Amino acid sequence: MDFAAADLSPDRIYKLLVSTVMPRPIALVSTLNADGIPNAAPFSFFNVFSNAPPLLVIGIEGNKRDDGRPHKDTARNIAERGEFVVNLVSHAIVQPMVVCAIDFPDGVNEIDEAGLTTAPSKQIAVPRIAESPVSFECRTFSIVDLPYNRKLVTGEILHMHIRDGMIDDKLHVDAAGLDLVGRMHGSAWYCTTRDRFEAPRMTVAEWRAKKTS
Amino acid sequence: MDFAAADLSPDRIYKLLVSTVMPRPIALVSTLNADGIPNAAPFSFFNVFSNAPPLLVIGIEGNKRDDGRPHKDTARNIAERGEFVVNLVSHAIVQPMVVCAIDFPDGVNEIDEAGLTTAPSKQIAVPRIAESPVSFECRTFSIVDLPYNRKLVTGEILHMHIRDGMIDDKLHVDAAGLDLVGRMHGSAWYCTTRDRFEAPRMTVAEWRAKKTS
Repeated sequence: MDFAAADLSPDRIYKLLVSTVMPRPIALVSTLNADGIPNAAPFSFFNVFSNAPPLLVIGIEGNKRDDGRPHKDTARNIAERGEFVVNLVSHAIVQPMVVCAIDFPDGVNEIDEAGLTTAPSKQIAVPRIAESPVSFECRTFSIVDLPYNRKLVTGEILHMHIRDGMIDDKLHVDAAGLDLVGRMHGSAWYCTTRDRFEAPRMTVAEWRAKKTS
Repeated sequence: MDFAAADLSPDRIYKLLVSTVMPRPIALVSTLNADGIPNAAPFSFFNVFSNAPPLLVIGIEGNKRDDGRPHKDTARNIAERGEFVVNLVSHAIVQPMVVCAIDFPDGVNEIDEAGLTTAPSKQIAVPRIAESPVSFECRTFSIVDLPYNRKLVTGEILHMHIRDGMIDDKLHVDAAGLDLVGRMHGSAWYCTTRDRFEAPRMTVAEWRAKKTS
């Protein structure tokens, strides 16, 4: 089956996109408001895109909260402060992450509410989430405004925090130790990264040899 | 442990980013060169970011091929034609995808070489990959040039193809049927999306009730 995007409502396009582009990495984004109150919310329109400069992009959806209002706290705080922290989500903090996604009234500190704690960042004022195995301190690189209150926020990574023991001196990662989760379809589905397999790259010569063997 | 990005080489930043931002969805991008020869290559600096307009972003890394040359075929073809297809990757086509990642000499049709076949698109000249369970026909929305030949390509989705039976009338997806894979760390690691779990969203009222119960 196939669909012309022009024939679909934005809501149907949203459903089709989040039901097919999977698994998506999750950014639990911590910010500070003008009064210094911390905020955190999860986003799966997210990935890293470059290493020089180190850039990540977050798509902040406008209409996906319980009451139809945009995720305005995160977007407003990023616009005001020009900095934020992307905290990655392990299986152990899925439930606190879900609490951070609740549409609390303004001024509620989702991080406290979720039972998470903050730790100071090294280069920015916005704190990271201590329970996250990986955090990136980011400065806003660009913000693109789209219809429906959506924003594409590109951040430059200034500082990286990785839980002790998760990366060795050769930068080999303990993927089982990180135990990250990915976002799947619907409003509730996720996947673990526990079912891993190897599919090694090949050179042309290796492929020629494999084909003829 | 923590690292200031300014103290790390681009290579080390690359290794740290691909070892931590996981799982990443995979775009097997098909393009046509000026002579009409199809090309395909996989990228995991990829995600969807907006539904109105429907936008996806691909980060085309400059130095990640066997010989250190950039993925110039995909980038050049997109720049020349202004269109491309993003084909998602199921477990069944992981090996063909790995063949598409081989640094073949110019003019080799990776799609043939990998044993994949093309099917015509509906709105653009670039064909999709028939074996992929989901394909998005895209028109270039913007290209941002970064250092080291890297490019951030944003595409607007014009047309969506989803394998018959994978989405029902209510747009509920058969995630097991799609059987998509995600990119993990290193040059060879992937994960399946077979280990799925639910973590439902809550309203404020539901959370208050849960906390006090």
